[in-house]
Amino acid sequence: MTAVAARPTHVPPIAVQWSSDGDGVRIIDQRLLPGEYVERDLRTVDDVCDAIATLAVRGAPAIGVAGAMGLAVAMAPLASLPHDRFAATLRSTAHRIRETRPTAVNLVWAVDRMLAQTAHAAGDNRGTIDALRTEAQAILDEDRAMCQRIGENGLPLFPDGSRVLTHCNAGALATAGIGTALAPLYLAVQAGRRIDVFVSETRPLLQGSRLTAWELARAGIPVTVLTDGMAAGLMGAGRIDCCIVGADRIAANGDVANKIGTYSVAVAARHHGLPMYVAAPTSTFDPRTPTGAEIVIEQRSRDEVARSSLGATVPDGVSVHNPAFDVTPANLISAIVSDRAVFRAPYAFETGNRRTAP
Amino acid sequence: MTAVAARPTHVPPIAVQWSSDGDGVRIIDQRLLPGEYVERDLRTVDDVCDAIATLAVRGAPAIGVAGAMGLAVAMAPLASLPHDRFAATLRSTAHRIRETRPTAVNLVWAVDRMLAQTAHAAGDNRGTIDALRTEAQAILDEDRAMCQRIGENGLPLFPDGSRVLTHCNAGALATAGIGTALAPLYLAVQAGRRIDVFVSETRPLLQGSRLTAWELARAGIPVTVLTDGMAAGLMGAGRIDCCIVGADRIAANGDVANKIGTYSVAVAARHHGLPMYVAAPTSTFDPRTPTGAEIVIEQRSRDEVARSSLGATVPDGVSVHNPAFDVTPANLISAIVSDRAVFRAPYAFETGNRRTAP
Repeated sequence: MTAVAARPTHVPPIAVQWSSDGDGVRIIDQRLLPGEYVERDLRTVDDVCDAIATLAVRGAPAIGVAGAMGLAVAMAPLASLPHDRFAATLRSTAHRIRETRPTAVNLVWAVDRMLAQTAHAAGDNRGTIDALRTEAQAILDEDRAMCQRIGENGLPLFPDGSRVLTHCNAGALATAGIGTALAPLYLAVQAGRRIDVFVSETRPLLQGSRLTAWELARAGIPVTVLTDGMAAGLMGAGRIDCCIVGADRIAANGDVANKIGTYSVAVAARHHGLPMYVAAPTSTFDPRTPTGAEIVIEQRSRDEVARSSLGATVPDGVSVHNPAFDVTPANLISAIVSDRAVFRAPYAFETGNRRTAP
Repeated sequence: MTAVAARPTHVPPIAVQWSSDGDGVRIIDQRLLPGEYVERDLRTVDDVCDAIATLAVRGAPAIGVAGAMGLAVAMAPLASLPHDRFAATLRSTAHRIRETRPTAVNLVWAVDRMLAQTAHAAGDNRGTIDALRTEAQAILDEDRAMCQRIGENGLPLFPDGSRVLTHCNAGALATAGIGTALAPLYLAVQAGRRIDVFVSETRPLLQGSRLTAWELARAGIPVTVLTDGMAAGLMGAGRIDCCIVGADRIAANGDVANKIGTYSVAVAARHHGLPMYVAAPTSTFDPRTPTGAEIVIEQRSRDEVARSSLGATVPDGVSVHNPAFDVTPANLISAIVSDRAVFRAPYAFETGNRRTAP
């Protein structure tokens, strides 16, 4: 690979968009970063589900958008099917996309929103296809606007000279826009502030070192990679001012499910008296889930931890613990930066994502 | 590789011993584990320094023993040198071995002890060579006895059913005996107790998943590997009873330098009210270093974090933070289990490793 070419304009990459011909979902294949930059057009439900399941497209907002756009793309060529078969295919396709990853609420939210829209559409297949396309476009546009608003809402938290720790990737690569956790950082840098970012590599899949480091370096923002075990030590050495991460699901009480390792960062931040911020769109809030204890955590394969291309890194026969996410209790979170507002504890999110008075 | 063949006798491997012919230092090449089990005989100062620098032999006690034995082995063939040249070679060889790794005090301690012994030896080369051999044998024997006593002293801390988190490798592979942090666990299992071990993989070099998992599985002790970011989450889920780690250097006030990531474990243990134990031989205590702030931390290469055999895991041009160790302050350590006693805070270690009254 060649060194990342920094763009001094501080422009982040576009992770999800329509393909040039409009008949596919164009993604950056994040499995290949940082070694190779490859854009891929997803044109079938198999393409879409495979891309989501294998993390070619990942990040809760991005997979919601990609799932919605993917449903529109997969149904578009089927106008000539008998109406009954078209309707059955729509249901099964939506179901397949919806079930691809269990923890991220955005995927369920986006697909359900697409289906709800078709209920109001004209009765023929063409009307449904048009409704799906329109709704997918709306979800895409809203995601971009959401990122921008999270950035604006979070901007005051990052004054000039901030040294910010983040974990995993909640950047442009995790959304269709400028990211969630990284959105305020992009805007801060664009406003002329100096921001130093520290990112933990995020084992086992290294989204921090591979993706966050890539997109920030590409945008010309200073970034330093550390292993996950080094974050507490950096805080102890006084080299971090605050932490910000994304979220895969936020329960009604403010408990946050996010990439495995987030809880460790939150515990260390509390120990050192540092602010721990979570940035997430309204669609990540799940008021039907009362607390983090009710969030189902996806368990991923042993080989993600136990194998490298050189062979075994864990002896055969030894157990591996590999949850994709952990839950950080609300009492460790200083503020939740959403597209709507900056929420502070005590959190109480209700259906419709309105915040009630404590 | 094949699956680890468990030895239901719970016998740990021997990491450092004399070669069959007695003219070399036989080590297990830990760079190749868990994929391959290779014993290697070190016969020259180059062999010894290379093995220590590249972590073929690693762990503070083991490199102390290997350094001492290596000095004896390197000087043994040089009896016929003119006395002046022999003496100069002894000094330069000792210096080279001593400087191979900066943080572990045991290496300096062992080499200095070897040199001190030669000062009392008969004046001819042969007398010095004999003295070196005798002292290396003493250091080897003492290391084995030290491990056994740490195990016995720590045994009461691990009742039947204990679920124990450890980090990195402070096992048999890190010593010439049954280990430091793992010594009480081997003895507990040999006494018929059920002990479940959880080990964090310990990025960047994966000593936890490659080495600790290997030696425990080989001995038939249940072990589960996790990534470094998962330890706090396991504690939060109530699945850990206590933590035990080794130490590379312990300051007079009880601050502990150990493998990077140890501080993170200690912070999480404190947050969850779990005991955090450190096991280390007397030779690891460095009363000349008043606090952890004075401990020089070895900074290792960027590529350890940034490269895998598949290529870059960090984009070129992005900074990497890669200290080999961190310092855990004494106030986060519940007890230090040494070969002499179990020390509890407040710690005050004096020259000669006597503990003063607080």
